[in-house]
Amino acid sequence: MVWGAEKMADFARLSINSATIDHRLSLEQCIDACARRAILAIAPWRHKIHDAGLKRAARMIRDSGLAVSGVCRGGMFTASDKAGRERALDDNRRAVDEAATLGADCLVLVVGGLPDGSRDLAAAHSQVHDGIATLLDYARRCNVPLAIEPLHPMYAAERACINTLRHANDLCDELGPGVGVAIDVYHLWWDDNLEAEIARASGRILGFHVCDWLVPTTDMLLDRGMMGDGIIDIRQISRWVTAAGYEGFIEVEIFSAQNWWLREAGEVLETAIRRFDEFV
Amino acid sequence: MVWGAEKMADFARLSINSATIDHRLSLEQCIDACARRAILAIAPWRHKIHDAGLKRAARMIRDSGLAVSGVCRGGMFTASDKAGRERALDDNRRAVDEAATLGADCLVLVVGGLPDGSRDLAAAHSQVHDGIATLLDYARRCNVPLAIEPLHPMYAAERACINTLRHANDLCDELGPGVGVAIDVYHLWWDDNLEAEIARASGRILGFHVCDWLVPTTDMLLDRGMMGDGIIDIRQISRWVTAAGYEGFIEVEIFSAQNWWLREAGEVLETAIRRFDEFV
Repeated sequence: MVWGAEKMADFARLSINSATIDHRLSLEQCIDACARRAILAIAPWRHKIHDAGLKRAARMIRDSGLAVSGVCRGGMFTASDKAGRERALDDNRRAVDEAATLGADCLVLVVGGLPDGSRDLAAAHSQVHDGIATLLDYARRCNVPLAIEPLHPMYAAERACINTLRHANDLCDELGPGVGVAIDVYHLWWDDNLEAEIARASGRILGFHVCDWLVPTTDMLLDRGMMGDGIIDIRQISRWVTAAGYEGFIEVEIFSAQNWWLREAGEVLETAIRRFDEFV
Repeated sequence: MVWGAEKMADFARLSINSATIDHRLSLEQCIDACARRAILAIAPWRHKIHDAGLKRAARMIRDSGLAVSGVCRGGMFTASDKAGRERALDDNRRAVDEAATLGADCLVLVVGGLPDGSRDLAAAHSQVHDGIATLLDYARRCNVPLAIEPLHPMYAAERACINTLRHANDLCDELGPGVGVAIDVYHLWWDDNLEAEIARASGRILGFHVCDWLVPTTDMLLDRGMMGDGIIDIRQISRWVTAAGYEGFIEVEIFSAQNWWLREAGEVLETAIRRFDEFV
């Protein structure tokens, strides 16, 4: 095998995040679109699970033979008062239940940003720590691994104040078994310390997400690229994740309001399959 | 003095970056607008210096009594071929000359992102290292300190692949005397390690830039906020910078295409003066 033809990620490891394809599709339609193309796993967002009904969703997924690489998403632990944080924990326990019912590999956590009106980043970090610590008791009893997903620093204020794999690894060290990380190339590619932190995450990598960073990027949230259309050396990061021992699914998650979301699901999936082979 | 009324930054330390006010103003008009409000320093962008002519710019600034907290900007060391990197170095030597002629406290470096078509982040880092190392010989002879400005990670691909103060500090350790850092709250506020890295930067802090991160941020480049309008705890970061021994100018740099750039320069400056007192 020559270098140029090196094959990192087997098709059997491909998972499709439901947010990658047309949002009007029901969970049933997502499952069908993936199963028809012999894709072996999906990662459903909770609103799609709720729309289908949890038991029905579980049955449809079981019948399709698809694995669930992760449930999107728990988290959002930060709030300006205790009642808000309690509500978040209640919702997170339900998310754990859903992940357990679906037999998901993990529940992905987008941890939350600064509470409304707050400038206190350290307090937000504490709230996230305490929220995960509380949820973890419950998640362990349900056998649902919690995957902290560090988000790109441009989301620190509004979505997630854990923005490096180092910070996520530190949290995992503090919190102990039952919590790990989801590594998304979009959020982490820029970090000069990424290789070392991926190695450090060995044994706790619960998910690996791929898409691409477009140049230029025209929207901070909804302009992610298909693998190969941007500037991330996805294969390099994939090698590091493989070297750290991760053998789970590799999830394609693309938020693309002006491009991929406007296309027919079949086209998106078939493109994702080709690009996965070429770039991941 | 009560805590709430704590005053960190003296008005005498306020500097105005020329990109904060109406872009149609000439350097002469910028100088005049600042001097009339007893502001003691400016940070001009090079295109304004070029438009005025370097010698004339130097004379106008000297006559106004204004100090120059920094010249914006050198850098952009990365390129897809050697000729491109040589051109960048030539331009950087001219920028050093201009900073020397204006008696600037430093030349600010926005180091450059990935070369066109490249996905090789490590190579870009090497190019930045080598570019600064080469320029440094010249800058030392001209007595112009070089200030590496780590930019927000959302600019890693297109503008600067040094995105944390840790990375900038590492580079300074490698490169030796004559190079330091410019700390901009907009780029660095999200970093949970910021306090420690500011302390580590003690003795090499060459600039401190303030503005604010708006929620929501609608444009990745041109939607920065006036101090107090966003979620950055600017005063906290200001305390850390002060604790690290920095006593130089504090520069207001706001790129705001849809708000502050549309207002009359006097209104922008008077707002900046009030907010500087209140939030920095």
